[in-house]
Amino acid sequence: MYGKEIEKELEARGINLWDSVRVTKGKEAYEGIVMPRTEAGDENVLVIKQNDGYNIGIEIKGAKIEKIAKAERAPEQRQQAKRPLQNLSKIALLYTGGTIGNKVDYKTGGVYALTKPDELLDEVPQLAGIANVDTKKISSVASEDMVSGNWAVMADEAAKALNGGSKGVVVTIGTDTMHYASAALSFMLEGLTGPVVLTGAQRSSDRGSSDGFLNLVCSAHLASKSDIAEVGICMHSTSSDDKCHFIRGTKVRKMHTSRRDAFRPVNSMAIAFVNSEGDITYNDRYRKTGSSGKVKANAKFDNAVALVKAYPGSDPGIIDYYCGKGYHGIIIEGTGLGHVPNLTEDKKKSWLPEITDAIDNGVVIGMTSQCLYGRVNSNVYRTLRMLGQAGVVYCEDMLPEVAYVKLGWLLGNYKPEKAKAMLNQNIAGEITERTLYDEFVD
Amino acid sequence: MYGKEIEKELEARGINLWDSVRVTKGKEAYEGIVMPRTEAGDENVLVIKQNDGYNIGIEIKGAKIEKIAKAERAPEQRQQAKRPLQNLSKIALLYTGGTIGNKVDYKTGGVYALTKPDELLDEVPQLAGIANVDTKKISSVASEDMVSGNWAVMADEAAKALNGGSKGVVVTIGTDTMHYASAALSFMLEGLTGPVVLTGAQRSSDRGSSDGFLNLVCSAHLASKSDIAEVGICMHSTSSDDKCHFIRGTKVRKMHTSRRDAFRPVNSMAIAFVNSEGDITYNDRYRKTGSSGKVKANAKFDNAVALVKAYPGSDPGIIDYYCGKGYHGIIIEGTGLGHVPNLTEDKKKSWLPEITDAIDNGVVIGMTSQCLYGRVNSNVYRTLRMLGQAGVVYCEDMLPEVAYVKLGWLLGNYKPEKAKAMLNQNIAGEITERTLYDEFVD
Repeated sequence: MYGKEIEKELEARGINLWDSVRVTKGKEAYEGIVMPRTEAGDENVLVIKQNDGYNIGIEIKGAKIEKIAKAERAPEQRQQAKRPLQNLSKIALLYTGGTIGNKVDYKTGGVYALTKPDELLDEVPQLAGIANVDTKKISSVASEDMVSGNWAVMADEAAKALNGGSKGVVVTIGTDTMHYASAALSFMLEGLTGPVVLTGAQRSSDRGSSDGFLNLVCSAHLASKSDIAEVGICMHSTSSDDKCHFIRGTKVRKMHTSRRDAFRPVNSMAIAFVNSEGDITYNDRYRKTGSSGKVKANAKFDNAVALVKAYPGSDPGIIDYYCGKGYHGIIIEGTGLGHVPNLTEDKKKSWLPEITDAIDNGVVIGMTSQCLYGRVNSNVYRTLRMLGQAGVVYCEDMLPEVAYVKLGWLLGNYKPEKAKAMLNQNIAGEITERTLYDEFVD
Repeated sequence: MYGKEIEKELEARGINLWDSVRVTKGKEAYEGIVMPRTEAGDENVLVIKQNDGYNIGIEIKGAKIEKIAKAERAPEQRQQAKRPLQNLSKIALLYTGGTIGNKVDYKTGGVYALTKPDELLDEVPQLAGIANVDTKKISSVASEDMVSGNWAVMADEAAKALNGGSKGVVVTIGTDTMHYASAALSFMLEGLTGPVVLTGAQRSSDRGSSDGFLNLVCSAHLASKSDIAEVGICMHSTSSDDKCHFIRGTKVRKMHTSRRDAFRPVNSMAIAFVNSEGDITYNDRYRKTGSSGKVKANAKFDNAVALVKAYPGSDPGIIDYYCGKGYHGIIIEGTGLGHVPNLTEDKKKSWLPEITDAIDNGVVIGMTSQCLYGRVNSNVYRTLRMLGQAGVVYCEDMLPEVAYVKLGWLLGNYKPEKAKAMLNQNIAGEITERTLYDEFVD
């Protein structure tokens, strides 16, 4: 509740929360949606959410308020979608944790995770005009702390929502490991009937530069309107606040610690671009909706898989370390086309003997490149042939992180021999036959 | 030696090896430098190197040869620089191995390393007109097999060459770990009097698309003409064969397995651009020549340092593994702003206890980001503060590979406490105060 002065003004003009208004004060005019007063907010400062997603507080004294349009739905209907609007599709919004729902803790100065998914709807009232949104909190985990069990819950809940009549699913998640999660869901979900859109925020919603608003709005448009039947990530495509791209869940990577357009396609192009108005431009081929069967979640995952980086001076004993712990699979981030230190001056630094031993003991070993862009190839150099002959699976143009997730999923669902055979066969768009060069570093 | 027919034609026109000629055959005309016959070459096919660096073989029958210009130096002078041209600077060309000197093994189909640095001069006769080149083979190691001892040899030889009157140094090296080597030399070399330019080839010289020619020519121009007193990498700046960029040795990474422009600046800009004509365009600030002292190589390196990647489900036991092996330092490739799995559902996956133990035992732990672009920051999230308070050194905008090399070098030269204090202090351009966004993925 605002203070008496504001409440009186609103009542006199028949304005309710979430209605669109124009506020004029002096020479300035602001348009937006009337937001509820925040707990710490001044009772005499009216908060409206502008069309660019940013909130502005206006001291009521001397301000003139006009009503532009009534909210499509009252708050309680909007939040619970209890009385859906017939012209809008139903989508599910699964909240898992992460910056998009973060608030600053003013006591410590740090940022911590909120646990109320409905608050996202309060923050982005525009969602109510895009779809009938069913929100559900399915976890409260920062993405850096996620393990495969968290991905399994997401897969199960996404399948349940789609099978329950949702046109699409939006999953809000922390950005740190969003691309690991999108890869996991890509493998886990079978027979998708609609888009599963992962999104989040690089900057928390209390900051002027927050990106969560546009990301959520664009994700809701994609989930409710697009005919894409794939898992992907929808985040800013440029450092401007103008549009998002939707990138296949197995061809995407967080490439910057803080930029809003941190998520980039690697060895691929964005599937689509979308703006806050809901205009969708398709940019590449994709799997379309049309399946009428049930969506299935194959969420089993073998956690005894490791991702290991090879580099000058790196210790090959790490292969033996994981074998000793009973691991079933190892993905190596090799150098260049898929090398490991081998013919080094220091014999203890040669990886081939350890790798051969591991393979002989039934461990599946896959090779990727720390270059990230491009494709590993065991046919160019003699030492690569030796690795290939030892039984290392060269993972084509797959990202190291994706190969790691894929191998864990394969070993969770298939016997080792079968998993090994499937590792460099395309399942969910993670391998492309020809690498397109359109998306490379500037 | 070519066959009688070619030798007769050349003799009749006073043409020697390395002279520039025009060959006309039917409607086609070719200009270039007369190359020696290759071992496997047809004795009736004249090979000339065109100005774009590519060799072409022309069957002599029906061809007309004209001399355009005499070679500046005879082959034996050119190769040994025994009789330097007074108008040219002296540079050193240190050959270490790698694709730039590779040949295809026609028996196995694979590619193997040659060990004759002088062959590089044969392949690129243009070098003779750029500088008085002193070649030296200092190793024969593919870059994926290099260890810190190889970097030490490079540093020592580069210092020796500069102290011996070379204006600059070109080091040819395999591309896989070229950026690790450039970082190592950046830290090891003190008081540089000229540029130390690392270069190589993404494709071997027998291929039409080889990039080694332009890379070598541009590197020689930089080494002999520029006033840069830094270590850096000079490779193609675009996928066209038109120019190279020179990127600071601590701010560069191989970002593609096969593209000629695979080396990109990260959190930085190229220092300069250079073309085959020797036109140098400076693009950013750099340390200039002017030091008259001796160049010093501090090549000590502590090999008991590891680079470890943290990811969902990653095993924190790896920290303990390295501690048990007596390691002195570990660089972590964390997620996002510098996270590790901590508050995971699976308690065995929490990294903080292992990290705290390691630090208590005197191990130096540095944090970088697997995003590569951007900057780690321990002040944004509560869990990051916990890591920072535990004594993890946040390495600003340093690349993981660079932080690894730097920590090995620091621990090789300083006591652990001092090394720890220096880890996030700029020494060789590896840390910039403000991250420029000009070079990010497209």
